[in-house]
Amino acid sequence: MEPLFTERGVFIALEGGEGGGKSTQAERLARTLRDRGHDVVLTREPGGTDVGTALRRIVLDHATGEVSARTEALIYAADKAEHVDTVVLPALAAGSVVITDRYVDSALAYQGAGRSIDAQELEQVLRWATSDLRPHLTVVLDVDPRTGLSRAGDHDRIEAEPLAFHQRVREHFLALAAEDAQHYLVVPGDEQPDEQAERILAAVEPWLGQAQ
Amino acid sequence: MEPLFTERGVFIALEGGEGGGKSTQAERLARTLRDRGHDVVLTREPGGTDVGTALRRIVLDHATGEVSARTEALIYAADKAEHVDTVVLPALAAGSVVITDRYVDSALAYQGAGRSIDAQELEQVLRWATSDLRPHLTVVLDVDPRTGLSRAGDHDRIEAEPLAFHQRVREHFLALAAEDAQHYLVVPGDEQPDEQAERILAAVEPWLGQAQ
Repeated sequence: MEPLFTERGVFIALEGGEGGGKSTQAERLARTLRDRGHDVVLTREPGGTDVGTALRRIVLDHATGEVSARTEALIYAADKAEHVDTVVLPALAAGSVVITDRYVDSALAYQGAGRSIDAQELEQVLRWATSDLRPHLTVVLDVDPRTGLSRAGDHDRIEAEPLAFHQRVREHFLALAAEDAQHYLVVPGDEQPDEQAERILAAVEPWLGQAQ
Repeated sequence: MEPLFTERGVFIALEGGEGGGKSTQAERLARTLRDRGHDVVLTREPGGTDVGTALRRIVLDHATGEVSARTEALIYAADKAEHVDTVVLPALAAGSVVITDRYVDSALAYQGAGRSIDAQELEQVLRWATSDLRPHLTVVLDVDPRTGLSRAGDHDRIEAEPLAFHQRVREHFLALAAEDAQHYLVVPGDEQPDEQAERILAAVEPWLGQAQ
């Protein structure tokens, strides 16, 4: 399967550990682009669809107890399939800017850091789930887990993992960014939000030509 | 990935279209083997685990509306992963006879009959989900969909598909059986339940040596 970058629309993903400011920056970017007249779809994974929300509940609920690593991977893959097929691809086809708070890289980083699944097999499943659709630009908000986790507050099942796990997650995001400089931007998590927003906008602008 | 047949325990799957008597025969077989002193785990897909039940609700509920074909495939795969990892493999390792009402073949037949997903890609995902664990014996209760559907009563989302779909499902089950005679038994759906039960027991007996 070949990586797919759509020729219409612009697809932006915000990635990174907990407490790095992904959601804040996703909302700021959406607002800025809307003010400039772009049609913007702001969405998220997991849970950007009704089905995704139901799936997210199954994985994150403490009440469910432990699920097997393969199960968790496949549930996240199902969420992504639904999100890509029913939200992201239609919006891109309509020429919109799609901004997603988390995408495939999060699944690769979090599941990969768990180390209980073969990383290549996991990637195959996720690429299949998403038709290997790639963001034109992935912004990694890079934050030290010690800082990020203390900011994130409410701890669900994933956030309750030990620090070493979150350090592996961070390294995974950075490794993905290092492999494809053209489609990645790493933003230091300790910068001021205004600086971060400017840096992100500057990296997004070259792609806007193919949005409506 | 190599097909996996465990060396301990016996793994039996009952497969086939709606209204063929799978559940009845699964229960009869379980009862007979328990009476003979075997440790039997009777289970089902989708929904043989708590997570599976929650997943099954998402797919089958009319309320959810349409989900994308990939989403549905991955949700079923997640259910199977959980079922194999938390129910089937542990029971086989303990030397039990595991009888499952539906397994991978159902997903291959129903999803494959939909024809919206590449059959080979679908099979890869399902094999990965289940560590390619195969039943020692799969019993296909082969029933004409016109007869079977009228027996099945309550129609959920899948049963509401047109007749041609169910005919493709039937052909798919028979094709799988034809490929591997050693591990399949096709039982005519219009036989009396007593005859069916005898035929099934006769095919199961040679495998019982490796159960406790």
